[in-house]
Amino acid sequence: MRLLLVNANTTAAITEACAAAARQVAAPGTEILSATARFGPAVIANRAENAIAAHAVLDLLAERAEACDAVLLAVSFDTGLAAARELLRVPVVGMTGAACLFACALGGRFGLISFSTAAMYRELIEGYGLGTRLAGIALIDATPAEVSAEPERVAAKVSDAARRLAESGAESAILAGAAFAALGRRLADDAPIPLVDGIAAGVKLAEALVALGLARPTAAAPAVPRPSLGLSPPLAALLARTPAGR
Amino acid sequence: MRLLLVNANTTAAITEACAAAARQVAAPGTEILSATARFGPAVIANRAENAIAAHAVLDLLAERAEACDAVLLAVSFDTGLAAARELLRVPVVGMTGAACLFACALGGRFGLISFSTAAMYRELIEGYGLGTRLAGIALIDATPAEVSAEPERVAAKVSDAARRLAESGAESAILAGAAFAALGRRLADDAPIPLVDGIAAGVKLAEALVALGLARPTAAAPAVPRPSLGLSPPLAALLARTPAGR
Amino acid sequence: MRLLLVNANTTAAITEACAAAARQVAAPGTEILSATARFGPAVIANRAENAIAAHAVLDLLAERAEACDAVLLAVSFDTGLAAARELLRVPVVGMTGAACLFACALGGRFGLISFSTAAMYRELIEGYGLGTRLAGIALIDATPAEVSAEPERVAAKVSDAARRLAESGAESAILAGAAFAALGRRLADDAPIPLVDGIAAGVKLAEALVALGLARPTAAAPAVPRPSLGLSPPLAALLARTPAGR
Amino acid sequence: MRLLLVNANTTAAITEACAAAARQVAAPGTEILSATARFGPAVIANRAENAIAAHAVLDLLAERAEACDAVLLAVSFDTGLAAARELLRVPVVGMTGAACLFACALGGRFGLISFSTAAMYRELIEGYGLGTRLAGIALIDATPAEVSAEPERVAAKVSDAARRLAESGAESAILAGAAFAALGRRLADDAPIPLVDGIAAGVKLAEALVALGLARPTAAAPAVPRPSLGLSPPLAALLARTPAGR
Amino acid sequence: MRLLLVNANTTAAITEACAAAARQVAAPGTEILSATARFGPAVIANRAENAIAAHAVLDLLAERAEACDAVLLAVSFDTGLAAARELLRVPVVGMTGAACLFACALGGRFGLISFSTAAMYRELIEGYGLGTRLAGIALIDATPAEVSAEPERVAAKVSDAARRLAESGAESAILAGAAFAALGRRLADDAPIPLVDGIAAGVKLAEALVALGLARPTAAAPAVPRPSLGLSPPLAALLARTPAGR
Amino acid sequence: MRLLLVNANTTAAITEACAAAARQVAAPGTEILSATARFGPAVIANRAENAIAAHAVLDLLAERAEACDAVLLAVSFDTGLAAARELLRVPVVGMTGAACLFACALGGRFGLISFSTAAMYRELIEGYGLGTRLAGIALIDATPAEVSAEPERVAAKVSDAARRLAESGAESAILAGAAFAALGRRLADDAPIPLVDGIAAGVKLAEALVALGLARPTAAAPAVPRPSLGLSPPLAALLARTPAGR
Repeated sequence: MRLLLVNANTTAAITEACAAAARQVAAPGTEILSATARFGPAVIANRAENAIAAHAVLDLLAERAEACDAVLLAVSFDTGLAAARELLRVPVVGMTGAACLFACALGGRFGLISFSTAAMYRELIEGYGLGTRLAGIALIDATPAEVSAEPERVAAKVSDAARRLAESGAESAILAGAAFAALGRRLADDAPIPLVDGIAAGVKLAEALVALGLARPTAAAPAVPRPSLGLSPPLAALLARTPAGR
Repeated sequence: MRLLLVNANTTAAITEACAAAARQVAAPGTEILSATARFGPAVIANRAENAIAAHAVLDLLAERAEACDAVLLAVSFDTGLAAARELLRVPVVGMTGAACLFACALGGRFGLISFSTAAMYRELIEGYGLGTRLAGIALIDATPAEVSAEPERVAAKVSDAARRLAESGAESAILAGAAFAALGRRLADDAPIPLVDGIAAGVKLAEALVALGLARPTAAAPAVPRPSLGLSPPLAALLARTPAGR
Repeated sequence: MRLLLVNANTTAAITEACAAAARQVAAPGTEILSATARFGPAVIANRAENAIAAHAVLDLLAERAEACDAVLLAVSFDTGLAAARELLRVPVVGMTGAACLFACALGGRFGLISFSTAAMYRELIEGYGLGTRLAGIALIDATPAEVSAEPERVAAKVSDAARRLAESGAESAILAGAAFAALGRRLADDAPIPLVDGIAAGVKLAEALVALGLARPTAAAPAVPRPSLGLSPPLAALLARTPAGR
Repeated sequence: MRLLLVNANTTAAITEACAAAARQVAAPGTEILSATARFGPAVIANRAENAIAAHAVLDLLAERAEACDAVLLAVSFDTGLAAARELLRVPVVGMTGAACLFACALGGRFGLISFSTAAMYRELIEGYGLGTRLAGIALIDATPAEVSAEPERVAAKVSDAARRLAESGAESAILAGAAFAALGRRLADDAPIPLVDGIAAGVKLAEALVALGLARPTAAAPAVPRPSLGLSPPLAALLARTPAGR
Repeated sequence: MRLLLVNANTTAAITEACAAAARQVAAPGTEILSATARFGPAVIANRAENAIAAHAVLDLLAERAEACDAVLLAVSFDTGLAAARELLRVPVVGMTGAACLFACALGGRFGLISFSTAAMYRELIEGYGLGTRLAGIALIDATPAEVSAEPERVAAKVSDAARRLAESGAESAILAGAAFAALGRRLADDAPIPLVDGIAAGVKLAEALVALGLARPTAAAPAVPRPSLGLSPPLAALLARTPAGR
Repeated sequence: MRLLLVNANTTAAITEACAAAARQVAAPGTEILSATARFGPAVIANRAENAIAAHAVLDLLAERAEACDAVLLAVSFDTGLAAARELLRVPVVGMTGAACLFACALGGRFGLISFSTAAMYRELIEGYGLGTRLAGIALIDATPAEVSAEPERVAAKVSDAARRLAESGAESAILAGAAFAALGRRLADDAPIPLVDGIAAGVKLAEALVALGLARPTAAAPAVPRPSLGLSPPLAALLARTPAGR
């Protein structure tokens, strides 16, 4: 299967890092394609940037999704997820949403570890209807850039955050941030609870959905193509044949 | 005060109709400015179109919001609301969100009447944390265009929907759709419960927030301007000085 | 419009302070009338006093509400709010309920700052269905009386409480207590998040509801006047023609 | 033990009927005293009447509760329950609240059967935090007065309502209304699920709380007696020594 | 009435202690029978042991429940409660479930005090739909065995836990653990809020349900006896005539 | 990887059918082992049978799980899931829980289609914290046995149920019952929304969890082996070294 990994940020280096992490966990038959948003924030860090990036995600998908079997949104806010699902027949997964589902599959409540923007993560998880499964959010005092520069120091902070979450009842923890993928197994060995990396989770969830044949039934296109203005031709064409929601 | 009414759709006729409705209820000192999305769907009708339109809303606001005291999103999905609030210091209200709040102020649970897309309205209201106040959603078998063509027939359908909602416990009902503004008082006289029109609600909520001085404190701009790519210059400039979320 | 401000406490000085605060924010055409409960606790501070005061509110309204266009309950527990709404056709708002709605309109979750009785405020807000929007309740170590005696000291405590609430995710905070009205703009300038004063919020919400024409439809009076015993003649008369609930 | 049964309505005949029903189920050592509200509606049927009656309940309790070991509010809205608990050290139970708890003890979700005012019952049960346990509310087309006049007809309607609730998942049903007490065992034999009568439930809950010694610890009286105005001397005296809430 | 107290653990000494505590609070006409699980963990302390013990409870009940009027599960996890209710016509209560209901009857939110396994208690209470009534869980640093060895020290820790729960809004607290029964009144006198002991609560709840005649209607046995394998003959026989659930 | 499929019922034919369905969807490297409960109900159909079967599941796992990499509970009630997770280090998934997670990954709310026992499925899904994602439960008028006898008739009923669920807002539906696996693709082609089969979902979820390395960290065994009575030697041995819960 061909899995299109889409970075909603416009920073190509993040895309490369995510794609590399994805390839490490992909099944033999899974080919990882990747794409970087062509407009929008370099790194999404607030709700406004997130909204803009959602458009960029759809814009990319309109051009690139045709040729793939599933899509992974490689951005910890799962930017544009519900919108992309409405546009495409193939499965679309978000890295944090995927991590939440696997965390649920481990049992009990889960925590989330990130660098900042706790409010956005809480809203995301509550939007998934999983608010009662969330044991807490622990922010670590570090930046994504420091993960590769000082992996030991960051790994120690993550372990510490995991310990605090475990004490408040979390039975697993989600790593919300593409940067964490680089720490890999270094983290797992130290943590008192399983740590779920979003990129890895997203790849496996996409593979599973494809294997299960869970594409959406093809809905009838609208009688009159839906009109739009000023969008890239592929996106305008895709919107034109996407029916209204129910 | 200057209230900027923003239509997230690219159909200027809707903007004009909304602005006219807004002017009818605006207080003497309120000047209604209006703006129409410069790109995106003609009329938003699914989550994908809604996501694209959110970018268009922010794009407009970056250029136009400076000169106004408050913003009203004249679109029944409150497209881009949370994102716009993060970007601007002045109050930003959505027409359906405003209607929900006034419906809450009338007491008890409320219903929602619309043409279609019940799922999107349910998600919107649950996202506001008001799920337990929602008594039900009643869709009427008509199109927005028919409101002006056959006002009597549509008004009768709305009355009927209001009656059904009242029977299932609603003590008021929100009219979700800019088209309803045209029916005006015709509806109120027949309905067994108060009907809350979103445009009128939005104007009054914006006026109240301005009168209360409830602008957000000005946050410190980020030390390094936040970078972005391929956006309109005003939007890029606004993002550059908007701090990361918490 | 004529807005009747009702103090559910029997302390006339509080009524005067609230009316003065209301007049400062009232729109030009809004006349503030005021009334003080004729029986009940001097200052409501527990659920029992609150229940008694609800009767006193209704008793006052039966005599006074006829001549007004809206009612503002100037008591931070919104004493008797749902009951008053059932009795009157004109809009009735409570100061804390109003503040909650405007806080919701600012986005995100909100906090509440008060002097005591956290449990009663939590129950009030959960009763409004807004429990998931409440980020926390911060009590300050001061009495209402100290607000006017030592405004600087109290203002500093309020700022500190607002800062703590902001850290736990509140994007605005409600000031629950009529006494806070006196601090006015002194508070707003220091706080990291907007502070919503209940009296001001209540005035603006009432004005908006009147402007929107959101009175309740007049329900048919019961076939046989509903009997009661030992109530003031105006209240008995009003109950007699109020239909049973649904 | 002495159990004071308080009717929040001013109709003495209802008090007598409730007291008679209570005596039928009371344990040998339980003496049933009774009292009727001295002011307020003849029969509570909306939120306004309910609020007034809460004062009447407290007024009665201030005079009568001293000499009893527990209080049963014999009114299906549990009028004034939280307020009365704050005022008294002895246990106070409401008939519908008691029925809810026993229904919970039977397992699964429960339904509620009544004559009218579904909204008030839903609010009552949600206020108890039991909203997710409520399978539905079924109103029967009859009046309380008809229960004694046409018991067979009403019993058939109750059976039918119970059957509908059972089909929608209720594993028991609460009879909300003092009038149902008269139907007694006639109902139980026909119903597909257990029917919980509020008066009987209230008596048993009060007996249990007394047997368990679950009176509230005596809180210290306020340093300065809390002042009030225009209340009956016993109520004023009781308020004076009741501390503020937390 | 004959109340069968079932200990889901295989430690007979705990059964004896519970039965003794039950007899102290039982009404004159209540005979306490007791039974100890014949297989399973000595003391349940995780979800796996709890699941095994549920079978042991049902196995005991199949043999012993015939001759009794109600069942009390004397184990703080209410092991097998819903299953036992489905199997028997007589009321079945769990000690923690019973304590929760009486705590609700005291008003406000309640806390829970135990030795360990907070997650299991949270799940239990959320499963009862009472999550919003739970103010918090306080674990004390002691073992059940220390209750009898060092009652003063443990009582002091319980008082301290009750104080902390009261500060976070609990108006009563449940003692989750059969061992607490031994501390008896020693605890109540010190605590700032009522403490609800599960064994005592369970006895009183069972007595009340029997007095109310709230046995489940006898459902028709399945047309074909339901088959099973390898169970004790009494349990196999009981399952054979128990209908499928709805 | 070796995936142990455990049937909590004692009917070996169901085990074989489930294992065959599992092998059809298993990845090339996945070996499906299977095991049938050695005691308990032939087919679980109420809460009592479900509780007994949970013990049988643990009993099987104690003997068989050592040699496998993950466990799939092939029973639509996910019998013993939380208990099994506490006992084993390898991932344990339930077929309905797995289907819920994949349904969540498809977006929006989901429905559930089954033959009976709606209450047990609702409790299961609410226990997973997914109550707000559940759009409804549709029971079909057929028995599991009829699936193979009259596949066309049952498939038509399933399609009809899916259509009704879609109308009430479901964007996918879970097939709760091992029998549905046999209908396979026949169903998918007709349904207006994706149908998620539990066995297939469970296999893919287990494969993903193994691929992600999400085994639980090995907890330290208790200092003193935990004692039990009358259990099979492997189960007793496993319990002995499993620590108490937190």
